[in-house]
Amino acid sequence: MQGSTAGRLTDEGPITFEKLRGLTAAEARRHFRAGAYHGHTAGIAPGMLQGNIVILPAEQALDFSRFCQRNPQPCPLIGVTDTGDPMMRTLGDDIDIRSDVPLYRVYENGELVDEISDITNRWRDDFVAFAIGCSFSFEDALIESGIPLRHIDENKTVGMFVTNLETTPAGPFSGGMVVSMRPLAVADAIRASAICSRFPQAHGAPVHIGDPAAIGIKDITAPDWGDPSEFRAGEVPVFWACGVTPQNVVRSARPPICITHAPGRMLVTDVPAWATDSKKPKS
Amino acid sequence: MQGSTAGRLTDEGPITFEKLRGLTAAEARRHFRAGAYHGHTAGIAPGMLQGNIVILPAEQALDFSRFCQRNPQPCPLIGVTDTGDPMMRTLGDDIDIRSDVPLYRVYENGELVDEISDITNRWRDDFVAFAIGCSFSFEDALIESGIPLRHIDENKTVGMFVTNLETTPAGPFSGGMVVSMRPLAVADAIRASAICSRFPQAHGAPVHIGDPAAIGIKDITAPDWGDPSEFRAGEVPVFWACGVTPQNVVRSARPPICITHAPGRMLVTDVPAWATDSKKPKS
Repeated sequence: MQGSTAGRLTDEGPITFEKLRGLTAAEARRHFRAGAYHGHTAGIAPGMLQGNIVILPAEQALDFSRFCQRNPQPCPLIGVTDTGDPMMRTLGDDIDIRSDVPLYRVYENGELVDEISDITNRWRDDFVAFAIGCSFSFEDALIESGIPLRHIDENKTVGMFVTNLETTPAGPFSGGMVVSMRPLAVADAIRASAICSRFPQAHGAPVHIGDPAAIGIKDITAPDWGDPSEFRAGEVPVFWACGVTPQNVVRSARPPICITHAPGRMLVTDVPAWATDSKKPKS
Repeated sequence: MQGSTAGRLTDEGPITFEKLRGLTAAEARRHFRAGAYHGHTAGIAPGMLQGNIVILPAEQALDFSRFCQRNPQPCPLIGVTDTGDPMMRTLGDDIDIRSDVPLYRVYENGELVDEISDITNRWRDDFVAFAIGCSFSFEDALIESGIPLRHIDENKTVGMFVTNLETTPAGPFSGGMVVSMRPLAVADAIRASAICSRFPQAHGAPVHIGDPAAIGIKDITAPDWGDPSEFRAGEVPVFWACGVTPQNVVRSARPPICITHAPGRMLVTDVPAWATDSKKPKS
């Protein structure tokens, strides 16, 4: 499992997505920890906050923390570990950030060098893990409001695109915002904007609706990450700020080492998506 | 002006509060920068986001940044400077954090050693300034909603109290939450809770209503900072998480140096209080 090269873990693993649906967040994480599932987490533990993950050495952590504060739509910070501590204590009772995400990507000097399902052997005493709110957290609210989401219906990973919407820089971190795109009927796009504005910890309202070229996207059928989506009559593309933005930013910042989740493979937390303080409920 | 000892600047300065009312945030800051006013900022530049200030060496900045992320009600982070840069660039066009706050407090090893209106001579290349949302930012919304606030009517500083509500620790930073208290009729307390929940960047909804003893406050007539408030028939105390919490936490963390605003004397920013991304509007 460890030391596998990029692209090797393309299958979901011994446990299927269908079997994971209906499990609690903690139960699902146990399967991820065992290396039994490497697929996407959209639709797993509905109603619970999910997080993008960025792991950096302490030397880069203060600048990255500033980057998140300055860019709250793509990077709403929902959790930060103590330096060297692999447990994400504020987001759940037993979250080991080295093994509890289905799939990780390892970047060295900004280049993707590995895709693995466990980073225990790569963990360092100076590592800091950041959890960043994720659009999956508001998708349940949209579905419950009667707004269908095609990539969920089709069990695909949402399409993600690099844009020319500039982030506010912090230290070495700068670059174009990454967005996720969902095709919606216009009336649903308006309702979705209102609903998502209530989830600032999960990217909030969309950043753009309509013409992809207006935000620098040349080909809406060719996402930079995830799967393309079919458009039906009367549908418009709706774009949300995306927590994969740091993976684009890291390309130019080129820190010596950076580990992230693989796109679509999130940390599933024990925090309800509507908990505005991003803390697990007191037991 | 500089090097004055604690308590020396008890007067407001050559410019009165009444003259400052009606000025823009940038105009008011110009008077603060000139050392012409050392009083409180409640009611100045209504509708603009105000911030508590905490300045620490970079060595403590990552832990303090984590403390804010883990305690968003007392410490909603609205701005962070680059290390050594005295300009708070994301909150206004020309905010020099060394001079643009009416009054500062200097703590060495957790002890208050000075109260001065300019810290330019004390600024260091390794300093990081944090701006934390402030209850003043939602007070306009309450007043416009017909909820009277006594300390504003009486031109006093709101009363602040240390509580036994524990913060979530980060590194050396831990301790009791500080709250601000406003006496309100019960119906107004309920309305205020609903209104303030829309201002997560300004402490959000109250943390407690009613019995002060339930959160460890022994004497409601003797605030730890600010002025006491009279209670009228039918009024209950309403408590909000307060951005003076770091000043309580710093007492136990005892960093070698820490500079804060003096309670009630905030940074007045160019950001509208309703801007959920805490960024100045693009010009």
